[in-house]
Amino acid sequence: MATLADIGLAAAINILSAFAFLLAFAFLRLQPINDRVYFPKWYLKGVRSSPSRSGNIVQKFVNLDWRSYLRFLNWMPEALKMPEPELIEHAGLDSAVYLRIYLIGLKIFIPITVLALAILVPVNWTNDTLATSKVVYSDIDKLSISNIPKGSNRFWAHIVMAYVFTFWTCYVLLKEYEIVESMRLHFIATERRRPDQFTVLVRNIPPDPDESTSELVEHFFLVNHPDHYLTHQVVYNANNLAKLVKKKKQMQNWLDYYQLKYNRNPSKRPTCKTGFLGLWGSTVDAIEFYISEIEKLSKEEIEREKVRKDPKSVVPAAFVSFRTRWGAAVCAQTQQTRNPTQWLTDWAPEPRDVYWQNLAIPFVYLTIRRLIVIVALFFLTFFYVIPIAFVQSLANIEGIEKAAPFLKKLIEKHVIKSFIQGFLPGIALKIFLILLPTILMFMSKFEGYTSLSSLERKSAGKYYIFLFVNVFLCSIITGTALQQLDVFIHQSPNQIPKTIGASILMKATFFITFIMVDGWAGIAGEVLRLKPLIIFHLKNFFLVKTEKDREEAMDPGSIGFDSSEPQIQLYFLLGLAYAVVTPFLLPFIIIFFGLAYVVFRHQIINVYNQEYESAAAFWPSVHGRIITALIISQLVLLGLLSTKNAAQSTPVLLALPILTIWFHLYCKNRYEPAFVKYPLQEAMMKDTLERAREPNLDLKAYLSNAYIHPVFKGGEEDDDFSIADEQEYEQVLVPTKRQSRKNTPVPSKYNGSSSPSLPDVAQEP
Amino acid sequence: MATLADIGLAAAINILSAFAFLLAFAFLRLQPINDRVYFPKWYLKGVRSSPSRSGNIVQKFVNLDWRSYLRFLNWMPEALKMPEPELIEHAGLDSAVYLRIYLIGLKIFIPITVLALAILVPVNWTNDTLATSKVVYSDIDKLSISNIPKGSNRFWAHIVMAYVFTFWTCYVLLKEYEIVESMRLHFIATERRRPDQFTVLVRNIPPDPDESTSELVEHFFLVNHPDHYLTHQVVYNANNLAKLVKKKKQMQNWLDYYQLKYNRNPSKRPTCKTGFLGLWGSTVDAIEFYISEIEKLSKEEIEREKVRKDPKSVVPAAFVSFRTRWGAAVCAQTQQTRNPTQWLTDWAPEPRDVYWQNLAIPFVYLTIRRLIVIVALFFLTFFYVIPIAFVQSLANIEGIEKAAPFLKKLIEKHVIKSFIQGFLPGIALKIFLILLPTILMFMSKFEGYTSLSSLERKSAGKYYIFLFVNVFLCSIITGTALQQLDVFIHQSPNQIPKTIGASILMKATFFITFIMVDGWAGIAGEVLRLKPLIIFHLKNFFLVKTEKDREEAMDPGSIGFDSSEPQIQLYFLLGLAYAVVTPFLLPFIIIFFGLAYVVFRHQIINVYNQEYESAAAFWPSVHGRIITALIISQLVLLGLLSTKNAAQSTPVLLALPILTIWFHLYCKNRYEPAFVKYPLQEAMMKDTLERAREPNLDLKAYLSNAYIHPVFKGGEEDDDFSIADEQEYEQVLVPTKRQSRKNTPVPSKYNGSSSPSLPDVAQEP
Repeated sequence: MATLADIGLAAAINILSAFAFLLAFAFLRLQPINDRVYFPKWYLKGVRSSPSRSGNIVQKFVNLDWRSYLRFLNWMPEALKMPEPELIEHAGLDSAVYLRIYLIGLKIFIPITVLALAILVPVNWTNDTLATSKVVYSDIDKLSISNIPKGSNRFWAHIVMAYVFTFWTCYVLLKEYEIVESMRLHFIATERRRPDQFTVLVRNIPPDPDESTSELVEHFFLVNHPDHYLTHQVVYNANNLAKLVKKKKQMQNWLDYYQLKYNRNPSKRPTCKTGFLGLWGSTVDAIEFYISEIEKLSKEEIEREKVRKDPKSVVPAAFVSFRTRWGAAVCAQTQQTRNPTQWLTDWAPEPRDVYWQNLAIPFVYLTIRRLIVIVALFFLTFFYVIPIAFVQSLANIEGIEKAAPFLKKLIEKHVIKSFIQGFLPGIALKIFLILLPTILMFMSKFEGYTSLSSLERKSAGKYYIFLFVNVFLCSIITGTALQQLDVFIHQSPNQIPKTIGASILMKATFFITFIMVDGWAGIAGEVLRLKPLIIFHLKNFFLVKTEKDREEAMDPGSIGFDSSEPQIQLYFLLGLAYAVVTPFLLPFIIIFFGLAYVVFRHQIINVYNQEYESAAAFWPSVHGRIITALIISQLVLLGLLSTKNAAQSTPVLLALPILTIWFHLYCKNRYEPAFVKYPLQEAMMKDTLERAREPNLDLKAYLSNAYIHPVFKGGEEDDDFSIADEQEYEQVLVPTKRQSRKNTPVPSKYNGSSSPSLPDVAQEP
Repeated sequence: MATLADIGLAAAINILSAFAFLLAFAFLRLQPINDRVYFPKWYLKGVRSSPSRSGNIVQKFVNLDWRSYLRFLNWMPEALKMPEPELIEHAGLDSAVYLRIYLIGLKIFIPITVLALAILVPVNWTNDTLATSKVVYSDIDKLSISNIPKGSNRFWAHIVMAYVFTFWTCYVLLKEYEIVESMRLHFIATERRRPDQFTVLVRNIPPDPDESTSELVEHFFLVNHPDHYLTHQVVYNANNLAKLVKKKKQMQNWLDYYQLKYNRNPSKRPTCKTGFLGLWGSTVDAIEFYISEIEKLSKEEIEREKVRKDPKSVVPAAFVSFRTRWGAAVCAQTQQTRNPTQWLTDWAPEPRDVYWQNLAIPFVYLTIRRLIVIVALFFLTFFYVIPIAFVQSLANIEGIEKAAPFLKKLIEKHVIKSFIQGFLPGIALKIFLILLPTILMFMSKFEGYTSLSSLERKSAGKYYIFLFVNVFLCSIITGTALQQLDVFIHQSPNQIPKTIGASILMKATFFITFIMVDGWAGIAGEVLRLKPLIIFHLKNFFLVKTEKDREEAMDPGSIGFDSSEPQIQLYFLLGLAYAVVTPFLLPFIIIFFGLAYVVFRHQIINVYNQEYESAAAFWPSVHGRIITALIISQLVLLGLLSTKNAAQSTPVLLALPILTIWFHLYCKNRYEPAFVKYPLQEAMMKDTLERAREPNLDLKAYLSNAYIHPVFKGGEEDDDFSIADEQEYEQVLVPTKRQSRKNTPVPSKYNGSSSPSLPDVAQEP
């Protein structure tokens, strides 16, 4: 049991280390040489350029102005200064709303902390249950609910506070949902014209023996949306081509590197090995090797042509654009044909948000894939210890000695031996945890989502489940998730909250330390950006030749919603679960949210470069997870109180989760549609405004190139796409190739598709 | 433990009683006097009229043709003769698809029974576990899984069969879903023009200070669906008026009755009492009393006018009609405004399917009401025994003696005493069970559904939950639902299937008897229609004067989906749960489904008169409940085998429910949209066809009277609704009363509403 002094010491150490990080950051960011690491966002926006070349060469790298060091914490108020509308303008709505998650944390927990410290701590403190009992206890326990005798009437204070906290949390959530909803709607209403406002992604286009996909799409929409259809773009399966392009770029990089090396030291021609990772294989002249490799890859050009010409490389998906936003909104929200697995329509993601690889997956596979991922996630969550334990068992002294006998002498040395024993088992787990977001992202990709934003949202959901089971549950009831599963299956359902409730009390000090190490120090480490800093300087030193190279060497990164949001959720869970039980934990949570808010606001303003804009589409899942945390905390309290012989409180507390679930359903019905659908009134308003402002807009030209696979977006391809004049479709019959086309194979007159024209592949029956 | 002989005896008794019912039916239906009881459907269709008046008077009432009695079971093949398309034509798709539920039962259970009897019964029979053990056992137990020794390898036969049965059930369900879906789509595609195809029900229209609801609706849809909006009808809150009309009709009925009585016996003027139910109060001349009462109620006319004139009686809901089915399909499937709780659009139910009372409930109340109903249903299911036990405790000898001491002498008599003791406690439960569907229907109405069909579907869901808990679970583990709840909460989750699995074996004979009594005899009783028979003859004797009265005295009834479907589901549950465990039960299930199919087919052809047509919208819930039964049966088998020391089978069996749930999700995605949405392609096809066939159709006139509250549909009201010519809306600005109307209060020029015009109620600001 940790005493208050222990906690104080730990806090001091962590505050100091966090402070050290912040100091290092304050120092490093002032050096001109690091400017591109700490302010990449401004470079990308074109506002900032490399430090001026005037002055002496030292000043180009090191900041010698001593006064600037005095104001080393200046970045904090500066980060808070930018008003929200400007922030949205600067970094996008996603980033601005992401920051509101931290703000919600503050809004929820500051009043709760004040109330809990003012009411619950005195109620807990003025008992002497622990003093008269024989258990070992610390001062923190005296502040917690464990200091209340069994069956005491004082528990009513806790029950009332549980109600107050629940209502306050729900109130904040409701208000926040309202604000985010109106921010999103306002953002969508005021944003300038974008291709995705007019475009719908159509998937699972059924094959047709008589017509190519492009013709089929055109005919289908001319018939079923005659007044609104404008044009469409078919999707090519360019995955192979994309791979080739990527490989060529890599080779080019290596070639550049060796040429640079050769230029610096012309006396020795660089060599490299042809085998795996350049570690073995025959040694060859590096420059010649890569030149020949690149030449080989020039079949890329052939592949590019092949993709364009081959009808088989057209996947059964298309981006269909409409004349009005109203038309697109209608098409996205309705079912097209009898068979709900064909002609699936959905809003097109932003062009840069499209995940091209998944566009071709048929419906049946999607459901099978989803089943597989659910099962895999279950095993990953509960059984991940098994492969790690296996690796750990291999990675011990005996295992290594067996595998590599020549190392025996080295290993037997005392220092190295203890290092391996102490370090290796941990590193297997650490590597797994670092890889985890990647694994989860892979699972989401396998599930078949078609936009990067939805991939990140789905990965975040999976990560939250993993963290809840393996960090929260397993820390409370010591043991692996697998053991928990076994225990829980064999326990009665009303025993589980009791088990958790009873152990949660004893883990308060552990979680306080966890918040300080993982939360405070982690956030302070985030602002330092040690990894991008090192990589940038390495690249800058070895590879950068031109200004453009330097641009590419910058790695601004992004928020990383898929891994960072579930971690915030963990703090919501801890805060809510301990609010009634051990209020002493709450100030630590508040400090975390406050620090994180400032740091991430700074990073979003100066560093991160968001790759896409989903207009805060993630908010419903954020809201849902906070609600989950709230319900878990209520169940835990219920279990805890029933172990405290306060059984008469059970029905009173049971009402809380029911009310909370009902509140969630209300919010879901009331607000979620705004994040999924696009109301017709809004669409009509925007259409009308635009028609009045720009009556002669050539929308077809505007949309013609919007949705092309990025590999086709080279320089020379632009000419291939003819920008046809808008044609008049009204009152015309739609020509079809079916039925009577044997004698008169008239090509489609209204080929609205702006994709490169394809050869006629219809088979004569 | 019942032996085979016991079962045989019970079966013989039940078969005989069922046979007696059928004989009585065969006899009664041939009497001309009962013709309207057993063939009302044909009368309502106008195909059949009262028996010919030729011949002597006896023949009018009694069938003297002895040959017809010889063919007394003839109705059975006749009921099967009508082909399905004709049946759909005759009785509607709902009825035809309802019959398919019984067919599915046959399709699922006949192959399962054959397989189980051929494979599992020999496997079970050729053991001697029971013979060597000391437990009392019957022959039926020798045929069941209880005859297999613990840990035997023979259990693999049962596991394999569980897989086979699951796959077969899923296959049948899949095929059936496919058939029903295409039947529904075909039905919708080929049915003639109906108002609901063009109409959308709009609810939660926000209040507007400047415009009346009617004007607001018109402007909103002219702006947001400019090319498609045609007309609309506002909804009046005519609930009070409807009550008055109903009361007046009742009074009229009594007046008729007394006048008839007076005519038959002119010597004595009939009298009646004015108090409650005519049991007490002052005695008055009946005819005069009712004449004056009816006069009083003529304020009805005033109320009718008041409703029409008073803008406050317009509820914030409207039926909006469109020019095309395409326009209506679009409006019904999309969100209209930012706020998803306003301007809620949904398919309009058929005019006769509308439940008018619920149209005015605001969105927030809907969610609160739903919460209340969920909680109420929980208490109803688990705690319904408490009030009944209370009533029962009152309804004993002592309670009655206390309440009514003057009855003491009578009660003390032996016969009456034993009658009260044996009968009264049971009757409280019986009354509750008879009232249950009404209670559940009331709960569904309270929840706020707006069509009769959805009310019936929702009540059916609630009834199924009640039956599952109180019939299935409580019969298996003897005790009330309340005791079960207590037991289950205190048991571990993997203990529950074990408890059920262990007891299910011993309850096989009970359920066999249950199937015979409740199933066989119940179905045979259904065909006899004893209650409508008696009521019809009473009415016929006392009230009927004209042919129209006789028409009204017929009570054809309807399928009663809300109470009959959950009862069928109980047999699916029993069949699936016992298929692997005690295959001997299966033949009884098959006989039930076969008999029920014939009987209900006969009733649907000759008796029932369906009030509305929902085009088989109930199928997804039927499918879902069979899947639920399948999953429950798998869990029970899992629990049973784990008590049989066949623990190694657990993972194999655990895969079954997961696969079944996945199958359900697949079906839900694949087929359910066809029951909820209306694909645009279908709508467009029907529109195009209609335009080609009837280019000059006056759709507005066709729709003008479609959605009026039934009380307004009297004779004289028809003239009030002017059938306006279709106006041209294209390219016109929509006049609004807002902003500048202070000076120029121009009335809306395009008042497309065909409701009676309302006075201008806009308040000057």
